Amino acid sequence: MNQKFPSDMSHYPTAIQKLIDRLTRLPGLGPKSAERLVFYLLYQSLSDLGELSGLIQHLKDKIIVCPQCQNFSETNPCLICANPRRNQGVICVVSRPQDVAALEKIGDYQGVYHILGGVIDPLAGVTAESLKIKELVNRLKNQATHEVILGLNPDMPGETTILYLTKLLKSYKVPKISRLARGLPVGSDLEYTDEVTLADALKGRREI
Amino acid sequence: MNQKFPSDMSHYPTAIQKLIDRLTRLPGLGPKSAERLVFYLLYQSLSDLGELSGLIQHLKDKIIVCPQCQNFSETNPCLICANPRRNQGVICVVSRPQDVAALEKIGDYQGVYHILGGVIDPLAGVTAESLKIKELVNRLKNQATHEVILGLNPDMPGETTILYLTKLLKSYKVPKISRLARGLPVGSDLEYTDEVTLADALKGRREI
Repeated sequence: MNQKFPSDMSHYPTAIQKLIDRLTRLPGLGPKSAERLVFYLLYQSLSDLGELSGLIQHLKDKIIVCPQCQNFSETNPCLICANPRRNQGVICVVSRPQDVAALEKIGDYQGVYHILGGVIDPLAGVTAESLKIKELVNRLKNQATHEVILGLNPDMPGETTILYLTKLLKSYKVPKISRLARGLPVGSDLEYTDEVTLADALKGRREI
Repeated sequence: MNQKFPSDMSHYPTAIQKLIDRLTRLPGLGPKSAERLVFYLLYQSLSDLGELSGLIQHLKDKIIVCPQCQNFSETNPCLICANPRRNQGVICVVSRPQDVAALEKIGDYQGVYHILGGVIDPLAGVTAESLKIKELVNRLKNQATHEVILGLNPDMPGETTILYLTKLLKSYKVPKISRLARGLPVGSDLEYTDEVTLADALKGRREI
């Protein structure tokens, strides 16, 4: 090893190594996939690199947080909150903007949303105070709401948040509080379904 | 669906959707991981975004292709080719710059490299003419070479390239042509090793 130049150490030129290191810090990218991306980019034209870097640099330029639902938006309020055909009296509470996209893909939810920005997760240091719950309460105070749908994941932090919000929303006399149904996902197999899901599916059975 | 604004369709603001689409075109990134990356970036500071976009934009600014080994470099020739302690008479031929990094990590290869820029793969449209084989032949002509190590993957395109290069190098009277040993990788299990690898390990057995 002592026979090599010191700069041989990283094995890559500085610009390459720096971008690999920077990309490795992004979620879901390990050193190997970052390396693969950088070498792909090295074979792209300068205008392609400029296009990608421009999109990243200007990502947030026109993006605001909708003061009503807390979603990312280019308009104030966002297109969903501003849509006169949406029912402002039904609020679906979700954790992240991606959840709104998932629900919008169904195409028949007519209410509006509220993005918490996460779920209560003490182990990860996320408390109720760090979520957009104050903003949700303000909406309830300013606008007649007949239903709040808790569209949160059926996992530990999601369930904790559902418990917390149910208690809170009841104190604000929300007429109807609901949660997404638990049960068998399409294409699943009874034999391999865990007992909690199966019990939920049985309890929530529907007459046909 | 007809009750929604047309711009609801993509579910995301334009800047977000555009970056998701652009990232999805990169190798190893599907729409879901691209989405995850973009929402991670939305929570980063403007200076973080500037840093990442700058690294991408200026990635190739100082990078040249070493005229000798064809590797990416910031110096001419590259640090490995310019290192007086490396044996210029031993050339290890590899497919990609990443392979050089992998071999350099061992820390005791003292020769130099030649990057082909791929392997012969007719199904993928890669012919011998599109690889840096001419440049390899020129090196052989200009410099006494006592060994060429074919450091290519032991897969179909790699084997094809090894066959092609062996024939070519013999015609240039290279004294020694070698290839990386095939055999059992460390930590593997005889029982689950395919017969070709096992046959290679047997044929290449070493006295102890």
